[in-house]
Amino acid sequence: MTVTSPTKAQTSASAAWSTIPTSSIARNTLNPIRVVVEKMQASHGPTQTPISLSIGDPTVFGNFNTHPEVTKAVRKQLDSYRANGYGPSYGLPVAREALALKYSTPEAPLSANDVILTSSCSSALEMTVSCLADVGQNILIPRPGFSMYKTLALSKQLEAREYRLLPERQWEIDLDHFASLIDDRTAAVILNNPSNPCGSVFSRSHLEAILAICEHKRVPIISDEIYADMVFDCPSTEGFHALAQLTHTVPILTVGGLAKQWLVPGWRVGWILIHDRQQLFSQVRRGLEALSTLILGPNTVIQAAIPDIMTKVPPSFLADTIRRLSIHARACERRLSQIPGLQVVVPQGAMYMMIGLDIPNFTGIQDDVDFASRLNLEESVEVLPGQCFNYPNFFRIVLTPPVDKLEEACNRIARFCNRYYMQ
Amino acid sequence: MTVTSPTKAQTSASAAWSTIPTSSIARNTLNPIRVVVEKMQASHGPTQTPISLSIGDPTVFGNFNTHPEVTKAVRKQLDSYRANGYGPSYGLPVAREALALKYSTPEAPLSANDVILTSSCSSALEMTVSCLADVGQNILIPRPGFSMYKTLALSKQLEAREYRLLPERQWEIDLDHFASLIDDRTAAVILNNPSNPCGSVFSRSHLEAILAICEHKRVPIISDEIYADMVFDCPSTEGFHALAQLTHTVPILTVGGLAKQWLVPGWRVGWILIHDRQQLFSQVRRGLEALSTLILGPNTVIQAAIPDIMTKVPPSFLADTIRRLSIHARACERRLSQIPGLQVVVPQGAMYMMIGLDIPNFTGIQDDVDFASRLNLEESVEVLPGQCFNYPNFFRIVLTPPVDKLEEACNRIARFCNRYYMQ
Repeated sequence: MTVTSPTKAQTSASAAWSTIPTSSIARNTLNPIRVVVEKMQASHGPTQTPISLSIGDPTVFGNFNTHPEVTKAVRKQLDSYRANGYGPSYGLPVAREALALKYSTPEAPLSANDVILTSSCSSALEMTVSCLADVGQNILIPRPGFSMYKTLALSKQLEAREYRLLPERQWEIDLDHFASLIDDRTAAVILNNPSNPCGSVFSRSHLEAILAICEHKRVPIISDEIYADMVFDCPSTEGFHALAQLTHTVPILTVGGLAKQWLVPGWRVGWILIHDRQQLFSQVRRGLEALSTLILGPNTVIQAAIPDIMTKVPPSFLADTIRRLSIHARACERRLSQIPGLQVVVPQGAMYMMIGLDIPNFTGIQDDVDFASRLNLEESVEVLPGQCFNYPNFFRIVLTPPVDKLEEACNRIARFCNRYYMQ
Repeated sequence: MTVTSPTKAQTSASAAWSTIPTSSIARNTLNPIRVVVEKMQASHGPTQTPISLSIGDPTVFGNFNTHPEVTKAVRKQLDSYRANGYGPSYGLPVAREALALKYSTPEAPLSANDVILTSSCSSALEMTVSCLADVGQNILIPRPGFSMYKTLALSKQLEAREYRLLPERQWEIDLDHFASLIDDRTAAVILNNPSNPCGSVFSRSHLEAILAICEHKRVPIISDEIYADMVFDCPSTEGFHALAQLTHTVPILTVGGLAKQWLVPGWRVGWILIHDRQQLFSQVRRGLEALSTLILGPNTVIQAAIPDIMTKVPPSFLADTIRRLSIHARACERRLSQIPGLQVVVPQGAMYMMIGLDIPNFTGIQDDVDFASRLNLEESVEVLPGQCFNYPNFFRIVLTPPVDKLEEACNRIARFCNRYYMQ
């Protein structure tokens, strides 16, 4: 064979290079939070120390650290030099077994084969949506809801149908609206309980009503339970119910991870729990297995540490996190509910709180994005406007900063509202 | 509002549940290695200790451990409790800076903004292909080549056009064939140098010839350099050349990771280096940034350790790995080239070696898959048949097992060939 390279004449005959185009997938992968935040003023007020109540990362203030047993478990694997190799794309057997044991209940038993390790809960969401829904189908997502749901739908050319959550009913789903959105092109419903951004926790009877609709409509559920068990000590909630425990028939993919309960969001360790007591997910299991080969799961050192993490961290660790978050929630609720122009929805769990804004009576403030921009500019308090969750005229705060910071932030919010609110 | 749950009558009126279907993406995500391996006999010979030469994981035999400074760097971050939170989706600034410094050269300068951290090199490949290529377009991939390239193309409904590598020319690309495959639907070309499965390393002049074609055709390159710098001490190679150093004009996305050179494939830390001296990748940068928000990069503890990993591991660590792999390669080459029926292509780098099979003269052996199955059944030696790389009548061995294991495996292969080969 003779190798022929292009001659110089050939090369110079080509058209000039032009900008390399991107795929429709890349163009359609939009993060609503980024779009909204780019509209906002980036600058803080000149004199005050900034307080960020915007990022849902419990580690930023240094007051919520993971438990030393978690670190110790990882260190043990690291020092062994035996957990550095590839694991199966589905996850290490020891990690799958430990998670099956942790999340199995008599009503919803799990074996290791029902567990897939993923590179974060985001990746678990990506894989489950990618596996269940085809271009042109629709998925149901909550409004207000975690922005990733919409990003995923856009990225995969799916229609995102947003079901209403009702602030006046503690962010329960508007069930009539929910049912009306399901049709024969609905590939799956995404639930999020406890909820980001709402900080709400659904009651057993509400979950049963949702399940009855999905049962009737024959729609599988992706249940985002990344905030599982994170329920505040407050009279309006009866505690957390894992969705899969409440049905024998509806097929459910529960997604979760180490991020929130173990306070290590940067570690990127998530999972999918396959609840399928009618054997409806045989194709879905194969599909998830195939998709898992594209990324090959999370870091193996941490996977290998999961048995220790699940058994050696005392229950008092989560209890203490919840106890402290409950105090934070109560402090913010008490303080913010006294501020004219704000409507507090009492938070029940996760690590968030949504607050309504009586925008027409805030002089010269156009909407929640404007409110958040000016609050940051004038009082150096960062909050996320409701439009980040497709829910205007609300804002979200995170409850993880230390109480003194939260109280200082509430004071600044009060001062700001007093300046602008005219009743 | 009145909430109406479906009544029992409504529920029982529904059709029975049927199997939940999966998306075309999930159905199209096929791993060729898995398809081939499933055709093989799974069982080992009854009496001998199995020797696996099939999995490209240098850690499995315990003779290639990562450097203690790598472990120490991670332990430092772990014990600090300051690297557990979310990082930017693009990667931690300190990690981006450290990698820019590590991979910058006068010919191909990089700043931190040109580096994206990804959850493994696989994820880097997934993101770059996903960003550059749209449904209906084609990408060029090597044959034989790493199976993930084809899996990715199938998964994304792209046409995978396979360009020929020539074993008689030390696995160089058949440049005429390569150029003939590029048309106006070609979104990108994937190169892999040093190569898995070939163990080949391209010369500077060969890389320049490839660049000239891509320049002429105006096609961007995804350069998979996960085995960068891993070149054996052998007379047939002049060493490794990073592709981006050899052009000022062709836009290149170089992908790499910690997996091979630092011997931690399970850690899932990869990266994309954006080489774009003509500013042709402005849309691609935005696209990659958008896609990075779906997974949010690799584990932050390890990202935070990257500056130490890049500066504190002595150069002698990689040199020692290469020195040992060179000895392994020489031993296998010497031994296998004496076996009738086998054609050894002398390996130059990475950690692999491809061996041709004179199948017509192996009595009763149909093809490479049959060869590999029987070799495993009768002699307990696992190798990957060439069909895993879409290249029949070859097989691939990994060069990382200890020399005594490699020699024992070669002896068994010799015994097996002597039984079946009839000249």
